[in-house]
Amino acid sequence: MSGNFTPKNPKFKQRVQQSFDRQQAMATLGASIIDIEAGQVSIRLPFNETLTQQHGFIHAGIISTVLDSACGYAAFSLMPVNAAVLTIEYKINLLSPAKGDWFEAVGIVKKPGRNVTVADGEVYANSGGDRKLVASMVGTLMSIYDREGVEN
Amino acid sequence: MSGNFTPKNPKFKQRVQQSFDRQQAMATLGASIIDIEAGQVSIRLPFNETLTQQHGFIHAGIISTVLDSACGYAAFSLMPVNAAVLTIEYKINLLSPAKGDWFEAVGIVKKPGRNVTVADGEVYANSGGDRKLVASMVGTLMSIYDREGVEN
Amino acid sequence: MSGNFTPKNPKFKQRVQQSFDRQQAMATLGASIIDIEAGQVSIRLPFNETLTQQHGFIHAGIISTVLDSACGYAAFSLMPVNAAVLTIEYKINLLSPAKGDWFEAVGIVKKPGRNVTVADGEVYANSGGDRKLVASMVGTLMSIYDREGVEN
Amino acid sequence: MSGNFTPKNPKFKQRVQQSFDRQQAMATLGASIIDIEAGQVSIRLPFNETLTQQHGFIHAGIISTVLDSACGYAAFSLMPVNAAVLTIEYKINLLSPAKGDWFEAVGIVKKPGRNVTVADGEVYANSGGDRKLVASMVGTLMSIYDREGVEN
Repeated sequence: MSGNFTPKNPKFKQRVQQSFDRQQAMATLGASIIDIEAGQVSIRLPFNETLTQQHGFIHAGIISTVLDSACGYAAFSLMPVNAAVLTIEYKINLLSPAKGDWFEAVGIVKKPGRNVTVADGEVYANSGGDRKLVASMVGTLMSIYDREGVEN
Repeated sequence: MSGNFTPKNPKFKQRVQQSFDRQQAMATLGASIIDIEAGQVSIRLPFNETLTQQHGFIHAGIISTVLDSACGYAAFSLMPVNAAVLTIEYKINLLSPAKGDWFEAVGIVKKPGRNVTVADGEVYANSGGDRKLVASMVGTLMSIYDREGVEN
Repeated sequence: MSGNFTPKNPKFKQRVQQSFDRQQAMATLGASIIDIEAGQVSIRLPFNETLTQQHGFIHAGIISTVLDSACGYAAFSLMPVNAAVLTIEYKINLLSPAKGDWFEAVGIVKKPGRNVTVADGEVYANSGGDRKLVASMVGTLMSIYDREGVEN
Repeated sequence: MSGNFTPKNPKFKQRVQQSFDRQQAMATLGASIIDIEAGQVSIRLPFNETLTQQHGFIHAGIISTVLDSACGYAAFSLMPVNAAVLTIEYKINLLSPAKGDWFEAVGIVKKPGRNVTVADGEVYANSGGDRKLVASMVGTLMSIYDREGVEN
């Protein structure tokens, strides 16, 4: 994955952070942004038993929630000022059980576009000094221009 | 979608409910099972502001969390007693903004298999008497036999 | 799957057939349209050894080729006169080996939209009187308006 | 993408090439292998008008056919001698129109496993000295052990 892009909005970091802060789901999960670059966003999710599935791992859907936000904001970081971002679809592969002390979800734009942006995402589990890939995503994001009720 | 299957485990309803009850993520989201049939499971998620994204809709990842559980338990309902279920991958299309009073996530087995099961899922938003399709999923589930640490 | 839609173009059948006839890949594979409804298109592919993979089944990619056309033209059948159709992405699950006398690929619109349409697809293998589901697809199609070089 | 793996079968190159040579679909499309490494396979597809869709680009399904073979053989290159490979599912994003002199499809294993392997794929269009990414894939492949009728 790579992310060498020129942002259309010089204040993209502030803009991504402000929109993220309005995602109440992120606060509910305990997730926070740890890095914002042009076309790349990283989110941290601490392990929490309240987010687990039946085997005690973090639920695949919870993993996908932070990874979708990482991919969506990676796409959003490259969009012009008058655009909002919506997820059209994504696919996630669960590669290993999501167990660890905390997780890093990284979203990176693969192909930006005026209307459609494709982003790749990966989640790593961190335990002590170990780091292990647990999930990968491909997401298709849409730029929405000037639609009421959909502002970032 | 259809769901006309013969379960291998006569106590599949009890078994699905017990495993679901161990998914702490479901309790955290406020989700509950409303129906269990052989190869088909429905889950109810009430609207909750703490689960929203930046536009005030339920976060796509949260929608996918309940839908993944619905698809996973639809698959699990057809598995023999010594099997556990794990999600290999899924794809979700977000068809409309997830707004409404409550949501129903329905998972239905499309093709059961000894090792690999494919399930379709749909989420409907319910507002007053209206019912609207907001998301669709295809998930690939795996039966895990006799693996320590992975029991349902 | 269902397909109860009102076409925006009264000549949609003729339009779909004409565009299909310009897909040289369809002629190369020996595929032909067997039905066009508003939001639903069926394509026939005879078995042919020249399209097989290493086990003698039809190659998954060839199955996806006719199914992508079925989904794309199902979407296209609902589009207005000045739109062209492009596939943004699709996912296919291979449910059973693609063996049989001939295959029917059916694409059905799940959710039409001005810019983005989602379609479901299924491929059935026909052998003597038997009919078996061998693959399912979800595809995301885009309407392209007035773009040079992209006309249907 | 990376591909730093130890093959279980020292003759993996020969084995991949022999299986590829039995895929009649590859010969029909004019595709050939240009590189085989442990966990990574590249396939060349020359442009051919007989493989185009209605706008004159290579049909998305044909692109997916060579890319599925690239991903499948990348997975197969890491499998033990008694395993065959089957595609469970894949997702492809079409990033740019598939036009050019020839195309290179590269499949790289992301996560190998005894039963399930996940591979990433990319297709590049080559025109004169230019090279452009036109499609990306994620595929889930299965190792099949000792099943009659499914030998590589």
